[in-house]
Amino acid sequence: METDFLYRQIADPIEQQILTGILPTGTKLWSLRTLSREYGISQNTALNVYYYLEAKNLIESRPQSGYYVKYSPIKKVQQASLPSPRAVLADDSYWVHSVYQNIGQDHPLAMAHPGEALLPIAKLNKALIQASRSLQGSGVLYEKPEGNAELRKQVARWSFPLREDEIITTHGCLNAISLCLLSLTQPGDTIIVESPVSFGMLQVAKSLSLKIIELPTHPEYGISLLALERNLKKRRIAACLFIPTFSNPLGFCMSDEDKWKLVQLCEKYQVPLIENDINADVHFGKKRPKSCKSFDKSGIVLWCGSVSKTLAPGYRVGWVAPGRFYHEVLKTKIQHQISSTSITQEVIAHYLRTGRYEHHLRKLRVSLQAQLLHFQKAIADYFPRSTKVTSPQGGFTIWVQLHKDLNTLEIFEQCKKYDVSFAPGALFSLQHLYSNCLRLNFSLGWNSEVEEKLERLGEILKKA
Amino acid sequence: METDFLYRQIADPIEQQILTGILPTGTKLWSLRTLSREYGISQNTALNVYYYLEAKNLIESRPQSGYYVKYSPIKKVQQASLPSPRAVLADDSYWVHSVYQNIGQDHPLAMAHPGEALLPIAKLNKALIQASRSLQGSGVLYEKPEGNAELRKQVARWSFPLREDEIITTHGCLNAISLCLLSLTQPGDTIIVESPVSFGMLQVAKSLSLKIIELPTHPEYGISLLALERNLKKRRIAACLFIPTFSNPLGFCMSDEDKWKLVQLCEKYQVPLIENDINADVHFGKKRPKSCKSFDKSGIVLWCGSVSKTLAPGYRVGWVAPGRFYHEVLKTKIQHQISSTSITQEVIAHYLRTGRYEHHLRKLRVSLQAQLLHFQKAIADYFPRSTKVTSPQGGFTIWVQLHKDLNTLEIFEQCKKYDVSFAPGALFSLQHLYSNCLRLNFSLGWNSEVEEKLERLGEILKKA
Repeated sequence: METDFLYRQIADPIEQQILTGILPTGTKLWSLRTLSREYGISQNTALNVYYYLEAKNLIESRPQSGYYVKYSPIKKVQQASLPSPRAVLADDSYWVHSVYQNIGQDHPLAMAHPGEALLPIAKLNKALIQASRSLQGSGVLYEKPEGNAELRKQVARWSFPLREDEIITTHGCLNAISLCLLSLTQPGDTIIVESPVSFGMLQVAKSLSLKIIELPTHPEYGISLLALERNLKKRRIAACLFIPTFSNPLGFCMSDEDKWKLVQLCEKYQVPLIENDINADVHFGKKRPKSCKSFDKSGIVLWCGSVSKTLAPGYRVGWVAPGRFYHEVLKTKIQHQISSTSITQEVIAHYLRTGRYEHHLRKLRVSLQAQLLHFQKAIADYFPRSTKVTSPQGGFTIWVQLHKDLNTLEIFEQCKKYDVSFAPGALFSLQHLYSNCLRLNFSLGWNSEVEEKLERLGEILKKA
Repeated sequence: METDFLYRQIADPIEQQILTGILPTGTKLWSLRTLSREYGISQNTALNVYYYLEAKNLIESRPQSGYYVKYSPIKKVQQASLPSPRAVLADDSYWVHSVYQNIGQDHPLAMAHPGEALLPIAKLNKALIQASRSLQGSGVLYEKPEGNAELRKQVARWSFPLREDEIITTHGCLNAISLCLLSLTQPGDTIIVESPVSFGMLQVAKSLSLKIIELPTHPEYGISLLALERNLKKRRIAACLFIPTFSNPLGFCMSDEDKWKLVQLCEKYQVPLIENDINADVHFGKKRPKSCKSFDKSGIVLWCGSVSKTLAPGYRVGWVAPGRFYHEVLKTKIQHQISSTSITQEVIAHYLRTGRYEHHLRKLRVSLQAQLLHFQKAIADYFPRSTKVTSPQGGFTIWVQLHKDLNTLEIFEQCKKYDVSFAPGALFSLQHLYSNCLRLNFSLGWNSEVEEKLERLGEILKKA
């Protein structure tokens, strides 16, 4: 662990220099011998520094020559979105059904979760067998509606000091959000979301006949708190629903200060804040960013999470800490599904308790960041020159902004015959915005096939 | 199997004679020798006849003496319910919260599912390990929204000829019903249910702000089709929601003819019929009764089921065949939970495919019927003389009707200190009916502790 710490101390500043362009692509790096001498470290540690940077796809080793920077700087999406301030009923008009039909297991570039190769399937399998032995009734019996006690304890311990009796387990994060909305809203009510917003959020709102206000949102700093307060002042809002940490699709992470302000605003206007925190474990910075929930003194925040994107999508294990709405949400859960699957909750509880989840996450984060850099490089190399992309600080998705005249819905149709896919920008708003944008899932495991698909997509875009 | 068949041929008519009182309690039965001579069967088969009747708690063997009838005839609930024809908004007024809080794992007499001892936990555990090997990705990956293909195939094969692509798996039967109601109704809409009705149905309706019409219902023949048509004629009904086979709490099974008529009515007035068929596998007669779905030519029936009550409550595996509403229900599932737990679906698919489920059910049915008879006898022995009970033809619950001045909500409170519980009748209606009734779960495994509890309950009722 000591070595581990040491090589990161040296690698991190080099990484920053590469990302900011101080060390441009092609720069030859110090030899291992020089590096070890200059820093007073062993050659082995020096090697670990370069292995780490290579794994992140920031440098490459050329035989008989040494290590070279190979990162391509990207053009960043830097303007905030500007949706109209009106409330729009989430209905089928936005719902590009034929598009959604094509987004599925066969089109992983269009999704927002990691590929199979990144999940610890064999280890989970072992934990499953252990859990079937340790759990009374082997998971055949009903779990309590509030969920597996050990899992709630581990989740409470995991991110910040919550108590286990504040947490209710759910059938995944979307199910947690669905239970919150079912508890807090009536059809015709208005909720506020960021823009562009994950289409999963639009779908569940549609199912409940909610009206939606989309907020101006900056690709790096997140939602406009000014616009939020204007709306909160003006009309009755049933709930805010945000992904403040590594939003999907943009990947921004709001600052601690803005999160604190956001909670204050919700408290001031007494509007519940549903915080979708599903991506927070996948941070490319050193620490898990704080959640809004951690700034919540009065219980106005309903904090939702799961391991569906980081560990085991098929387990359907998620949770919600609904603050002062605990009893409403628990009642809604009982009313719609009684309890959650027993055995998979126990497996995840084991995995958290033994530290295996943290171990897995450490590897996952490095892999994902490396893949992000691969994607950014491929986009810089293959997509039209005017293309801008986001620089997500965590999560799984990258947002691509093309020339304003391009229509990604049309291009989506053309791409079908080339076996290339993505999520068209129009899906991420109810206001016919983002038709020149698209979202890509960068978490698939980089290989020549993926690179080829991006190259093909780039060619199609250049023609269009 | 030949012997199996033979002893049932002889035992069944004797059973009928006992149940109808032709052979009263205390009657000495033929000796094994006489029985084998009269029927021309082996003494071994004769022994099987008496073993079978003894397992059902209909006869007892007295040492050195022979076999005697020991069944106590019961007074049956025979009058149909008469709820008012008005539509009542499902709200908190009916919701006796403190009662529900006390209904839980510690009060199994109040529930409606089998005790742990009746579930094949060890065998399911083995199947779980097999499933984790056979399923691609060991259940870690997302299942398709429509669910595990093998499970859908087996469910389709199981009860009647449906195609697997007509079925969507769900997170249990209540979740299936919830998805149907979310797809078919808007708040303020009216649905029709039987009366008394399982409070689970009232709860999900409450969560969705639905109005409820309760139909007059006969404890043996089921809902009044006349009353149903009157209502369908009079106003817009968003859906019918019934348990036509072994209803909870009454245990009736509607005749094939009435089920056919019910489907015709729904078709005539174009009102979707949500059929809760969760109890149909637990039939005390020879065959699984036909479902309404089997009479459905036009897709007006949404057929819901699960293995939560017969095999593995904690697995949360259920399904719905939504007929012509397939796409709406699938969309609703995606909107609220994406997909169901992968691994538990695979285990149940195995269990169905290999015939182990049918094997398990054969034993379960005999055990449950024996326990029902134990309960009916204990009620006849210990409860006040005027007590009437239902004679369920399947399922898990028995409905007890006491003297009209008794209030089971009050008695429920008194019972707390005696560690006895039940589900008070008031929970089963929105119209302040059934305050002199209660529901018991007879599926707990009969033993002296359960008998003692019923004796204690009987004493409390006699005092009250």
